[in-house]
Amino acid sequence: MSEQFQGQTLHRTHNAGELRKAHVGEQVTLTGWVQRRRDLGGLIFIDLRDRSGYVQVVFEPSETCGPELMEMGDKLRNEYVVAVRGTVSSRSESAVNAKIPTGEIEVHVQAVEILNAAKTTPFFIQDNVDVDENLKLKYRYLDLRRPEMQKIFILRSKAVKYFRDFLDNNGFLEVETPMLTKSTPEGARDYLVPSRVHPGEFYALPQSPQLFKQLLMVSGFERYYQVARCFRDEDLRADRQPEFTQLDIEQSFIPLEKFHEMVEEMMVGLFQTTLGIEIPRPFPRMTYAEAMARYGSDKPDIRYGVELQDLTEQVRGCGFKVFNAAVEAGGQVKAVVAPGCAGYSRKQIDELEAFVKRYGAKGMAWIAVQEEGVKSPIAKFFSEEEMQALIKTAGASVGDLILFAADSKKVVADALGNLRQKLARDLQLIDESQFKFIWITEFPLLEHDEESGRYVAAHHPFTMPMVEDLHLLETDPANVRAQAYDLALNGFEIGGGSMRIFRREIQERMFKALGFTLEEAWEQFGFLLEAFEYGTPPHGGIAFGLDRIIMIMAQRPSLRDTIAFPKTSSASDLMTDAPSPVTTQQMEVLHIARHGKAVLEADTTAEGETNDPVAK
Amino acid sequence: MSEQFQGQTLHRTHNAGELRKAHVGEQVTLTGWVQRRRDLGGLIFIDLRDRSGYVQVVFEPSETCGPELMEMGDKLRNEYVVAVRGTVSSRSESAVNAKIPTGEIEVHVQAVEILNAAKTTPFFIQDNVDVDENLKLKYRYLDLRRPEMQKIFILRSKAVKYFRDFLDNNGFLEVETPMLTKSTPEGARDYLVPSRVHPGEFYALPQSPQLFKQLLMVSGFERYYQVARCFRDEDLRADRQPEFTQLDIEQSFIPLEKFHEMVEEMMVGLFQTTLGIEIPRPFPRMTYAEAMARYGSDKPDIRYGVELQDLTEQVRGCGFKVFNAAVEAGGQVKAVVAPGCAGYSRKQIDELEAFVKRYGAKGMAWIAVQEEGVKSPIAKFFSEEEMQALIKTAGASVGDLILFAADSKKVVADALGNLRQKLARDLQLIDESQFKFIWITEFPLLEHDEESGRYVAAHHPFTMPMVEDLHLLETDPANVRAQAYDLALNGFEIGGGSMRIFRREIQERMFKALGFTLEEAWEQFGFLLEAFEYGTPPHGGIAFGLDRIIMIMAQRPSLRDTIAFPKTSSASDLMTDAPSPVTTQQMEVLHIARHGKAVLEADTTAEGETNDPVAK
Repeated sequence: MSEQFQGQTLHRTHNAGELRKAHVGEQVTLTGWVQRRRDLGGLIFIDLRDRSGYVQVVFEPSETCGPELMEMGDKLRNEYVVAVRGTVSSRSESAVNAKIPTGEIEVHVQAVEILNAAKTTPFFIQDNVDVDENLKLKYRYLDLRRPEMQKIFILRSKAVKYFRDFLDNNGFLEVETPMLTKSTPEGARDYLVPSRVHPGEFYALPQSPQLFKQLLMVSGFERYYQVARCFRDEDLRADRQPEFTQLDIEQSFIPLEKFHEMVEEMMVGLFQTTLGIEIPRPFPRMTYAEAMARYGSDKPDIRYGVELQDLTEQVRGCGFKVFNAAVEAGGQVKAVVAPGCAGYSRKQIDELEAFVKRYGAKGMAWIAVQEEGVKSPIAKFFSEEEMQALIKTAGASVGDLILFAADSKKVVADALGNLRQKLARDLQLIDESQFKFIWITEFPLLEHDEESGRYVAAHHPFTMPMVEDLHLLETDPANVRAQAYDLALNGFEIGGGSMRIFRREIQERMFKALGFTLEEAWEQFGFLLEAFEYGTPPHGGIAFGLDRIIMIMAQRPSLRDTIAFPKTSSASDLMTDAPSPVTTQQMEVLHIARHGKAVLEADTTAEGETNDPVAK
Repeated sequence: MSEQFQGQTLHRTHNAGELRKAHVGEQVTLTGWVQRRRDLGGLIFIDLRDRSGYVQVVFEPSETCGPELMEMGDKLRNEYVVAVRGTVSSRSESAVNAKIPTGEIEVHVQAVEILNAAKTTPFFIQDNVDVDENLKLKYRYLDLRRPEMQKIFILRSKAVKYFRDFLDNNGFLEVETPMLTKSTPEGARDYLVPSRVHPGEFYALPQSPQLFKQLLMVSGFERYYQVARCFRDEDLRADRQPEFTQLDIEQSFIPLEKFHEMVEEMMVGLFQTTLGIEIPRPFPRMTYAEAMARYGSDKPDIRYGVELQDLTEQVRGCGFKVFNAAVEAGGQVKAVVAPGCAGYSRKQIDELEAFVKRYGAKGMAWIAVQEEGVKSPIAKFFSEEEMQALIKTAGASVGDLILFAADSKKVVADALGNLRQKLARDLQLIDESQFKFIWITEFPLLEHDEESGRYVAAHHPFTMPMVEDLHLLETDPANVRAQAYDLALNGFEIGGGSMRIFRREIQERMFKALGFTLEEAWEQFGFLLEAFEYGTPPHGGIAFGLDRIIMIMAQRPSLRDTIAFPKTSSASDLMTDAPSPVTTQQMEVLHIARHGKAVLEADTTAEGETNDPVAK
């Protein structure tokens, strides 16, 4: 091709995916990619794709489409980049494709420019393409071309825009906080950044803008938000990423109730604006204690029932040793009902038992309420009357299968909470078209950490205790509830926040409860404790996991689908090959050297050779 | 105070700064900070401040303001946080303060809650406070309380909101790109992040999202923007920060001309929306060559004249050795005119000479065009006629002072370009109310790097050469102009961009011109070169320095004023004390150890003691 290729002369007048019958007769210019080409009876058909969708473009020999143009058409291959001028025409009735929005029309070519050629792509650029995940990640830029991926990022951009509009309309200021910040004692998960100017010193990338947003309240900004990148260096699971995006909100002088109302209004508007879905308000609210009791989870999916039923009192003193032992040890006996599963085979039930064992259950008793009577390995321990009472309390009907857990409160909740979810999925009890929010409130302030034998902050160390529990902070810390709340959606925690401690004396009591001496607390958080002395307003806020919200809205299985350039479960970017080795010289400038495994790795590679052509 | 302080019962109904005469008679509740307190004739006056401004609140003994309330009023000190309920009243005529928007009214107190006390702040919370910069940075959260600082961040939030609205309306999608990315060969200024999972490997924080935004174009997103944090580890000057924010824009299928028009529309709208200022369009455009010739700068401040005048040809062969030598060596002789400075003393002229010497000039000839005739140390080298011709070409009138530079093109431009700016400031030639944009175009594609003896990319290695210069890429690289452009405003570069190379063969020629073998280029940029093979559209974009734009709009002297929590010139955060030492254990997990100076530093501090109470 000539060097004139930079001089694209045909410029887009319309988006390909937006052409309709109303455009018939118009001359249009389109630019985009060749989705596919077919040759049929001397004609060439191209599906021309751009961000808006695609349209059929026809090369049909005629006065305006001479041999030269036909030859150009013949050169086109999948993913070639072209500019096309032509006239919009109705398709013949037999050629109408009702499945696509542009299916009633086609564009008859009058001019073409091939802007760029394309090699054969390693996988087809189409939805539901079945290809190895790692190959897709390596060629992420091609994966992102697929219409279903484009839709996610269009949704994400719309959603973020909506959030900003809403918060701006409500008087919130967007303020950016630093990325190069200080490592904190919870810093085990910090990404560190060595300083060139200060030998031996490091910045930390923020796990959240928590300190800064509170300082902005001290600064009198009153209403702050930020769409903030956060970082956590933890072992990754399918639904975690080393860097993630938080919609971070903080407000002064607002009662918790009003704040929750505003958040609900924001979320309802989000679904209205981006998906056209109406969510009823107010959102249900549930204490942490109730959520754990009824759903075995602090982020319950309330699109379906299958709640946990407490049978502890009913089985107290019964003949079944396993139940009895759990009750005696201060534990619980609870059950969920699998509707319509009374006919499950022994093998099916064994599989469910194996499932709950993953969550610490030692076994699983069951009662099948069959038409012809009760079938259960524990039937012999209960009278007919007791058995009917159990069935009644569990809420089971004829045809149902009751599944039990008897253990500590924690194991029972974990086992049945997860079993409940599995049953709902397996039995297709979930209405996937629904989006159900629920507030979980009154979280415990502190958690006991087995390893260190100390209490740690359940939320973070700046969370305000409930005023009515404040007096327990020194005497019964485990039972102090916090002014902390999560917002859950369809079984995922999408946001969490709290009212903050804004007076120094409470903050100091909190640090003490966390096992810090005052001196240690000041060493770590001195600047924050000091800030609190200069007139800190009452304040609180919330942070939402933006990636997760988009994942749920787009009904995708993984956070990866919502991040343009995600990392794998070993925190690698397969496309750019990050992280990667650097030269010894680059390290020395930062006053660091390889240690341990890194030294061994370096010995086995010809360091510098593969990474730094400039240094040669 | 009782523990009930968390139960704030008075909730804001109005913003303090927005109360006006129209509110007289209304009962209002305000929340905020005590700006100051005065006691006068048994009354207590409080200026109550919130984000919107402040209003006078009066404690006057009455039926509704009994002794208990007066006692509360008496407790108030500067920066106490309070909620106040009262009635808006007109001030007596003599008490009206026309200087503040709320000066016609005051609020008579009926109820008060002290939400928090405050220690005496280390400096007064008021505009134009004269206090050490480092103290302000240490107590940044207090500095940010000052109304002039709040205004900047309100402006910044508005400006960013405006940009997003504009780009969203123009079909741009906001897409986030990674922060943990790959170190590149230009990586000398990269901040590195050691990987825990991959020993000896590092991420780099992005200096810009350049690669990713081009890949998004390969992905068919067509129109992308992002307000992106970027990082550069360089020696800091007053106007640099290690982390800064870029408004990053990229677009496919658009001719350069149309793209510039869109940018202009965006900038005009920005000033309209946020400052109510009309900027005329189109913006002037000037080639790099012309800007350097006329202003000695590629980011000229065009709010004033004092342009560089070329006298090279006129002085060729003259008797003044210095001029002659410069001309003979292929250099230039140019001048600027300092209007009305013909009467400058020898000392004043010496100071100007010292100034240009900083920019490499070896001396400075001058001609004072005085009423009584020409005064000049170089008068003797020119005939009366020649002298008049020089004065004419320089554009000087009676009363003016002509200042010369004779040297290489680069030194002349540097010396006179800077001298021009200094004169404009000193002589107050600049209309500070004006905002003058100018496009600088046709930048050189390559620069010769003295140190390495190689060509380096002037903009970046993906910049498209001008089509008419492409044939020079191998034979005369220094004279290849790029499809690159900067947008300058009032003498600052606020944005820069280019049309990109989108075809692999040109990209490979570019790498070759940069001295990479094809193999080296593929090792470094393989994934990008490969991406370009799968159908890359023509594309280009621009990146704006958001911090700088806000600095200019807010008419502040430093970028620091536009960043909520900025770093000092040694890249330190004086408030949080970042960067800071970490424990050996923290480093070992990341497979790194101290090296060089860092080892010495560690030996002199009791490592771990001051930094990690948890580890004890």
